Amino acid sequence: MNSHRYCVIMCGGVGSRFWPFSRNDRPKQFLDFFGTGKSLLQLTVDRISSIVNPENIILVTNRQYAGIIREQLPEVKESNILLEPARRNTAPCICWAANHIHALDPQASIVTLPSDHLVLKEKEFEKAIREGLDFVESGDRLLTLGINPTGPNTGYGYIQQGAPTKGYPGIKKVKSFTEKPDLEMAKVFLESGEFFWNSGIFLWSADSILKAFEKYDAETSNIFASGAEVYGTPDEAKFIDSIFPNAPSISIDYAIMEKADNVFVKTVDLGWSDLGTWNALYAASPRNAEGNVTQNCKVLATDCSGSMFAVNGDKIIVAAGLKDYIVADNGNALLIYPIADEQKIRQIVNEVKARFGEDYV
Amino acid sequence: MNSHRYCVIMCGGVGSRFWPFSRNDRPKQFLDFFGTGKSLLQLTVDRISSIVNPENIILVTNRQYAGIIREQLPEVKESNILLEPARRNTAPCICWAANHIHALDPQASIVTLPSDHLVLKEKEFEKAIREGLDFVESGDRLLTLGINPTGPNTGYGYIQQGAPTKGYPGIKKVKSFTEKPDLEMAKVFLESGEFFWNSGIFLWSADSILKAFEKYDAETSNIFASGAEVYGTPDEAKFIDSIFPNAPSISIDYAIMEKADNVFVKTVDLGWSDLGTWNALYAASPRNAEGNVTQNCKVLATDCSGSMFAVNGDKIIVAAGLKDYIVADNGNALLIYPIADEQKIRQIVNEVKARFGEDYV
Repeated sequence: MNSHRYCVIMCGGVGSRFWPFSRNDRPKQFLDFFGTGKSLLQLTVDRISSIVNPENIILVTNRQYAGIIREQLPEVKESNILLEPARRNTAPCICWAANHIHALDPQASIVTLPSDHLVLKEKEFEKAIREGLDFVESGDRLLTLGINPTGPNTGYGYIQQGAPTKGYPGIKKVKSFTEKPDLEMAKVFLESGEFFWNSGIFLWSADSILKAFEKYDAETSNIFASGAEVYGTPDEAKFIDSIFPNAPSISIDYAIMEKADNVFVKTVDLGWSDLGTWNALYAASPRNAEGNVTQNCKVLATDCSGSMFAVNGDKIIVAAGLKDYIVADNGNALLIYPIADEQKIRQIVNEVKARFGEDYV
Repeated sequence: MNSHRYCVIMCGGVGSRFWPFSRNDRPKQFLDFFGTGKSLLQLTVDRISSIVNPENIILVTNRQYAGIIREQLPEVKESNILLEPARRNTAPCICWAANHIHALDPQASIVTLPSDHLVLKEKEFEKAIREGLDFVESGDRLLTLGINPTGPNTGYGYIQQGAPTKGYPGIKKVKSFTEKPDLEMAKVFLESGEFFWNSGIFLWSADSILKAFEKYDAETSNIFASGAEVYGTPDEAKFIDSIFPNAPSISIDYAIMEKADNVFVKTVDLGWSDLGTWNALYAASPRNAEGNVTQNCKVLATDCSGSMFAVNGDKIIVAAGLKDYIVADNGNALLIYPIADEQKIRQIVNEVKARFGEDYV
């Protein structure tokens, strides 16, 4: 394995849209959604371990989740877990990790992964990551993986591909980024054949991404550059605790990808879903003849269809007459909701918190 | 308090219609249905304690529930708990208790109570029981309390009243018993004004009921009479273990009440429900503006009506779009079912048991 290759897994997200399955103290990436015995985070680590030396896998998370990370990934060294003292979107996370890795290895290349996505085609994934790393190691380039869209989904960011690159089939220059279009626009995107879903999987060298920060997000760049000498030393955590809260809350897409002129997209078919909503999970799960999905649970359903039943723990659900519902039961909370209204779940979680307190969210 | 007055509380029933709230190891009488902090059984004991000396309250239950009875009623003496070694309907239960009490006090009068009913009007109850005991203590009579029917309920037994008794206003001779009539007949009964619901509350002297067993159910009578010398002695339990399984499984209504010629009914308005079904519990519970009942739980309901939410434990339910549903959550089982189909719940419980095992019922 190429010892200059690193992976950054971002696993500090909250994911309230999966309430009551995901909870404040156990968000989506830590859940075993498919009953495989592994959480989405554990699956992510497994997936990259054949490409990147496990010693070179860096986890970035919120300090709140230090315990659950150690529980789920006891084999990861303490020094490979970067604990954010505050919530600040993806740009500060990526900038810190790049500084950290650059200090360890100035020649490092990095693949940055979300920790809570579904990837069904592992071989395609491995091939894409290897080819992508080859590409970013051979020049000052920022690369993102673009997913062949399967429908006019309005929940994803879209990447428009431009000119092809010589010698790298499947990698094109990026023409534009568009965050969550409306349905009409998503349909136009889909028909054009030029647009791909933004997977949130990024590849670059440590050097290239740090240069890009300098150029396109000087504020974040300066905050992290101020401690150049401490990265990789025992003083790093203390330094981060002091400066991290000053970093702006900004996404990597907005800070860098939409602005830089050396951004490329590699289009892939990974059997991918961001599992961003119950509906996405429903779509990614095997259904029975009535179109019901049973997630980790025993269900006796009469006259139910298009519904998703999810339980955390050993439990039986007996239901009748539910059409297109989510039934999700976890600990002290139970959700019985029309799947079409799932966008309201975030708001519900806020209402639950306001009316009944933190213990239920 | 009249020291010859005894109470027998029958608390060995299974009550699978309230699954998953009621469970094999914790049937309905042991549940705190109304969130009052007391189970239906505890409320029953409280209700009779102002009329009958607590030392004279005898509990008859299945051996399986000995532990939960001691837990819920630690003040009851061991010798006042009669443990049935097998399930045999009400006649054997009543016959045993009558033999037991007669041995302790040949002059005893007995009020026999179900343990899982709702009685809202405690003063009416107390008055009816006192007057009823006076009546059965003054002659060889079997008395049952009849409830003013509030609708053509097909789930109850009906008692037709006949001629009045001299000196006991409100007490009439019984003309007929009818078990669970169909709706048409129930409507005719209601209109006639002659029919009352059978409350399952019986009053008689120990002597009278034992005579009635001799005359109308000789099989049961002989089985229990064979141990006349052991009642009230340390050998009673051993004797019962040996003979009880031989007793026929038969209800007191069928064995005695429908046959005897000295049966009377006292008509009362007790704010009574047998809480035999989720629908009965729904009807007996306070509703909010949308007609929803929330039993012991926190509920955030949108666009729900006519529904009943019941949870055992501290839990929040978030639900939308449910019309006339039961949502009942208890431990490892969750029921989401149209309230109109509640008669299927027994069958469901059997299916759950067959498919998933004893642990869920």
